[in-house]
Amino acid sequence: MAYPTPAAMKLPEFFEEDRQVVDAALDQLLPKESARPTSIHQAMRYSVFAGGKRIRPILCLESARIFAPDVTAALHPACAIEMIHTYSLIHDDLPALDNDDLRRGKPTCHRKFGEAAAILAGDALLTLAFETISLTPIAPKQSIAIVQEIARAAGTVKGMVGGQVADLEAERQKIEPDMLEYIHRSKTAALIRASVTSGALCASVPTDDVARLRRFGETIGWAFQVTDDILDVEESSAALGKTAGKDIAQQKATYPAIHGLQRSHQIANDLATKAIAELTPYGDDASRLRAIAEYLVLRRA
Amino acid sequence: MAYPTPAAMKLPEFFEEDRQVVDAALDQLLPKESARPTSIHQAMRYSVFAGGKRIRPILCLESARIFAPDVTAALHPACAIEMIHTYSLIHDDLPALDNDDLRRGKPTCHRKFGEAAAILAGDALLTLAFETISLTPIAPKQSIAIVQEIARAAGTVKGMVGGQVADLEAERQKIEPDMLEYIHRSKTAALIRASVTSGALCASVPTDDVARLRRFGETIGWAFQVTDDILDVEESSAALGKTAGKDIAQQKATYPAIHGLQRSHQIANDLATKAIAELTPYGDDASRLRAIAEYLVLRRA
Repeated sequence: MAYPTPAAMKLPEFFEEDRQVVDAALDQLLPKESARPTSIHQAMRYSVFAGGKRIRPILCLESARIFAPDVTAALHPACAIEMIHTYSLIHDDLPALDNDDLRRGKPTCHRKFGEAAAILAGDALLTLAFETISLTPIAPKQSIAIVQEIARAAGTVKGMVGGQVADLEAERQKIEPDMLEYIHRSKTAALIRASVTSGALCASVPTDDVARLRRFGETIGWAFQVTDDILDVEESSAALGKTAGKDIAQQKATYPAIHGLQRSHQIANDLATKAIAELTPYGDDASRLRAIAEYLVLRRA
Repeated sequence: MAYPTPAAMKLPEFFEEDRQVVDAALDQLLPKESARPTSIHQAMRYSVFAGGKRIRPILCLESARIFAPDVTAALHPACAIEMIHTYSLIHDDLPALDNDDLRRGKPTCHRKFGEAAAILAGDALLTLAFETISLTPIAPKQSIAIVQEIARAAGTVKGMVGGQVADLEAERQKIEPDMLEYIHRSKTAALIRASVTSGALCASVPTDDVARLRRFGETIGWAFQVTDDILDVEESSAALGKTAGKDIAQQKATYPAIHGLQRSHQIANDLATKAIAELTPYGDDASRLRAIAEYLVLRRA
């Protein structure tokens, strides 16, 4: 991959188009604010529509688009994964965990609605995610494979919750590089891997292709988290929409803390190059997925 | 149904046999305590094996048994529902919600492992529930129907989380009988309905039978929660394994508070009678399910 250029750092243009499609689908899939009990639906919608970039659902859609131009079916797992991502942010921000007041420049869910509502809104989004997958208009065999893929990625054994737990335990402790790798791959890469894999499963592709895209997703997800660590050091709170430098303050396990900034940049670039190499067999059909991969390590926020 | 007799109040004998089968399956399905990260798996197992009666999984198994003697497949949704039930108790007990120190006579999850661990253990059990359903050895069409059934029952629109939210909102407020009905049917009856329905779905029965068992489950689940309200007034903390009289202290919306004790007994009995009538077409094949239904309204703990 080429060295970072200002042009490459910009959000790919199709992102905005995809983002709008995802937001419209999320609006359809989430219960209306007027549905009883209204308070929980307000809290769920507040957090889902707090201004996320929709990276995970867009990865899901663009993975499906390699194989077929109509990616409508992939909107279900795409939105389900965004619900899971949002639930994890709501619970992560709680006083008992990271105790964050701001998320994407707005008050966190518990600051806005109270702690009880935030706990239940997170629970509700995780639950709704699986209902949403069950409604995917594809063969049941593929739907159930997506349930399994996503549940594992969000779980405790090499999944998101396991990564969060290990991350909390690692605070204020000296950890080894292999533990750092475990945390990043579980906490972040697993759900990004599931996003890409679910797109491919919607397109009913051969298992070799699913495996190839799973490797792409895992590797680019890992690069994404290394880049997040770097941005926490390099960027301002205004650019990130959350408190910068928080990793250092909390003595979190990060790549810059263990490997230094320069080496962390190199690791992120190497991972992205390795991920993008997986897409070679798809040529131009994977040009959008390739563009996302480049953006994920060259972004500044 | 006959008036309560001491004999009828005892736990049916097959309960113990079923409970052991369910516990063995849960032990297989939950990650070992030694699996990394160990702290979350310890917290999950602590709460799952804290001494629950396994009413929901047993209802699932016995619903499947009406149609076929081998109920092995139904163990997956049965255990998934117990995981969801356990997660809901862990989160309900948190300081921001009911703030309970005791559950089944033992320290609650957050009292034992801390608040962060309890939040994440609940999240992890909910997630593992859906992975567990995806592993059910039945046709994918049936598995995905179970995912949908259970996700809806655990969700916000006439589901468990919606009922919990409405219940919290109703504290210290005068509520109407129809709101009380909404709370009880959402908070408790929905997941019990899903237990019974999932058993039938594992047996691949015609939709008429699924609908009939869904009605049975909904109605007996409602009767079960009315009985819970009654027991909170009538029984001691020692018998219940949790703080008795807590509903009154918290000014919770309950059947005795709105309808009085005598009328509440009558409502529970009428609901149980109505539920049991749904089982008539199955004759002796439903004798165990009938025995559970009777136990659920005649129990003293």
